Formats: sequence, C-alpha cells, structure tokens
Amino acid sequence: MTNPVMECLLNHRSIRRFKLDPIEPEKLELILQAAVRTATAGNLQPYALVVVDDPARFKEIAGDSAGPDLLAAPVAIFALVDQYRLKRWFELSGAPFYNDQACNLFISFWDATIALQNAVVAAESLGLGSVYIGGVLAMDIQKAFGAPEYVFPAGLVLLGYPDETPPLRPRLPLEAVVHRNRYRIPTDEEIRSFYREEDARFDALNEEQKAKLAERGIRNRAQHRTVGHYTEKFIREQSAAILENLRRAGFHIGQ
Amino acid sequence: MTNPVMECLLNHRSIRRFKLDPIEPEKLELILQAAVRTATAGNLQPYALVVVDDPARFKEIAGDSAGPDLLAAPVAIFALVDQYRLKRWFELSGAPFYNDQACNLFISFWDATIALQNAVVAAESLGLGSVYIGGVLAMDIQKAFGAPEYVFPAGLVLLGYPDETPPLRPRLPLEAVVHRNRYRIPTDEEIRSFYREEDARFDALNEEQKAKLAERGIRNRAQHRTVGHYTEKFIREQSAAILENLRRAGFHIGQ
Repeated sequence: MTNPVMECLLNHRSIRRFKLDPIEPEKLELILQAAVRTATAGNLQPYALVVVDDPARFKEIAGDSAGPDLLAAPVAIFALVDQYRLKRWFELSGAPFYNDQACNLFISFWDATIALQNAVVAAESLGLGSVYIGGVLAMDIQKAFGAPEYVFPAGLVLLGYPDETPPLRPRLPLEAVVHRNRYRIPTDEEIRSFYREEDARFDALNEEQKAKLAERGIRNRAQHRTVGHYTEKFIREQSAAILENLRRAGFHIGQ
Repeated sequence: MTNPVMECLLNHRSIRRFKLDPIEPEKLELILQAAVRTATAGNLQPYALVVVDDPARFKEIAGDSAGPDLLAAPVAIFALVDQYRLKRWFELSGAPFYNDQACNLFISFWDATIALQNAVVAAESLGLGSVYIGGVLAMDIQKAFGAPEYVFPAGLVLLGYPDETPPLRPRLPLEAVVHRNRYRIPTDEEIRSFYREEDARFDALNEEQKAKLAERGIRNRAQHRTVGHYTEKFIREQSAAILENLRRAGFHIGQ
C-alpha cells in the first residue's frame, strides 16, 4: 500500500550538515507554493514566511548572540504568526480588529507551522534536507526582520543539499503516542517500557563518561535530558523571551 | 521538476463531506506511522494523538455542546501537547520536571501540529480526504478524554473517503505571504491588491444578499469576515476557553 508520498514521509531524517550550494530558485519557488497551499483556518493565511537566502543576511542572523543557534545552510525559512496583514486589510475596509487574543495566536501558530511542515516535505521530495530550529521562538523578530506588531515567531527550518546521510532516529513505540477513543494513562511499567531504548542510550556510555556525568548528579537518560541538556535555567530563559515576544507583538494571553 | 509528493501537496483541498465507510486499519496505521516519523524537538515527541474511530464515541464528542463542531466522519485525530508522559518518565527516573512553561507549551504545540500535518499528507496520498477543526483549542480534553495534567489541545483533523470533489480554494498571491531576508511592510496599495480576489467574493453577492448584510453594517468582505463570521464575541469566548485550558493543564504563560 506504500506510495512515493509515504516513502518520503517515512524516510524523514533531520540534516545537520549541509552543502552550501544555493538552492535553485525554481525549487525554492515550488517549496513555497507547496507551503501556501497547506490548509489554513478560514482560508485566511494568518502567517508569513521570511525566506533568508542572502548569505550575508544569514550570517548576520546566525551571528547575533540574541538569535537562535544556526548551522550553516543556504536557506532558512522563518514561519511567523502574522495578524498584521489582516489588521491592515481590516483597517482599509473599515472592519474592526480584535485578533490580538489567544484564539488568533494559537490558530495562526498552527497554520504557520503546518505550512512550514509542507515546505519540509516538498524540500525532501526534491532531494533537499532540513532541520527545525526551536530557538526561533525566543528570537526578537521585530529587531531581526523589522516585523511590525501582531507578528510572532512560530517556526524555523534550515534547508539545503545534505552533506551527511544520518540513519533514521529512533521513535517511541506507536502505542506511547497514540491513544484510542480516550487518553489512556500509562502504567509505570508501560512508561518504563516506552523509554527502554532511550534509557539504554545512557547505559551505553563508557565508565569515564558516566563518572563525569555522575559528578553533576546525572545517573540516567532522563536526568541527562533535564539537568544535562534542557536545564531549568535554559527553559526559564527561553520562556521569558517568548513571553516578551508575545508582549512585544501585542498578543494578550495573560491568565 | 514535479513529482508525486509535490502533486499531492499542491492538490490539497479540505473535504467537508465524507463517506462514512470506515478507514481500513492498515491505512490508519500507515497514517499514524507517518505522523510519528515527523521531526520532533530533541527527539522527545512531547505530544499525543487520540484517534477516535468508534462511531459511538465520535457522536458523543460531536454532540457535546461544549465541544468543537464536527462534521460526520469515520475518523478524527486529536493532536495534544503532552508533557504528562515526559513528566512520568522524569519522576520514575528521579529527574526534575519544569516543562510547564511557555517554551515547552509552544515547542510541543509545534511538534503536535506538524505530526498532524504529516498525517494529513499521508492520508491524502492514500485517497482519503481531511479537514482541520480549529474549535478543538477551546475543547475541554480533560473532560472529553480523561486527559491528565500538562496535556493541552493542539489540533484536530477529520479523515475519511471524500464524498465531494471541491475545487482548489484560492490563496493569496505568494508575495503577500513570502518575504525575502526581512519583513517588508506592504503599502496600502499592495494590501488592496493582495485581497482583490477576496473583496470580489463579496462584490459577487446579489443585491438582496448585500441589502441583508448592510442591515448588520456589513458592506465588504473584511467586514463580512469579522462582524459577520469571526465575531468579537466568538473570538473572546474561544480565547477565554483556551486560557482556561492552559490553566487546567497547568501551563504557566501569565504575562
């Protein structure tokens, strides 16, 4: 029952080393056409895609200490929540604007990320590789791009010809993610079984590596993930920057 | 330069009338496999997919006045932010949990929606149709699914064999959505030109329709979109329900 689309989707792997050859303009155009064809709430396309393909501009953004960490790549596509364009249309039409609320924020964020995902699928079908960069959410896009009010970062993908052929990364067993007809709370034993492969990655470290991590209180994979990688300090700083971005953009989601 | 993947993406149209024949289990399985293969931050899959394929359960959810409006369809896939599963793994591993913040919420929301988008692309490649339902964001998933803390709605798609063949819906010109290297604020003339096709849809209404709308103060497409459809009352109610969902799930994004 497989087909070329399924093959493309099931073979996804993120690429972290790109050739710096530019992407052919007609390929980039197709990728963008696929992105904007994606489903969108009320057919309103409340998002923007900023394509950074000027190498000097790319380096500028990558070199900004307040910006997201970027690998070298010929193209970056930033997906932004964009209620500004709608606001201008409403204003020119004498229509009211109240799209500065949680509903508009999340719907636009959803639309922006799925458009970006279709860009990824299109790019991979054309022989390109991609990697998502989560750090974009904490980025000051008003400063970096001159974005106006009601514009907020939603996603970032780097694209280019792959300069590596990584293996497929593991995924949790399907039953860890998929629930049927209601949310079934897993038992402790099931949780342990879902993460057995993850846990084994820590166990496979050598004794010297483990001893070094133990000095920081890290004795298993989950602790490595939290204390060692996504630290509380990191999560708090990123979150504060995201809230500042919401405030700067003018979205009201205060509780 | 086109290929079967590009053809699939460029031919997307939302389906609003489905045959009620069930989806073959092996097709549904493939769709879910494509969804979980999607890129995910730190390879952590902080989302859940609730597949509702029991017709009685589907009707129950569709009939709940507090739930999202659902068309009849054989399958619904709800995408949920899910930090609960990670929390349980962390707890069983003696690792700290602080993933109740804006950073985790938005990264998980992003991951959940792009996984759902790959389910949509996979489904369409297998001859199925789909439609997204934005109203899911305001839905009480704790009540509907028995979802635990740190679980929050992120997306919903209905799937089934199409019982209609709608035309491609229009999209804004590419230059309305795509910016190059920075965000270029459009001029008033450009805004008018981007929305010319939208505006024409109102102008094409007959005089009787226009007269009825004029009684409600609606004299153009933008006013029809706001005052006539996504009313301030609707946006405020949906937003309040979303903030209540955040509070109920335990995410802290207060500004």
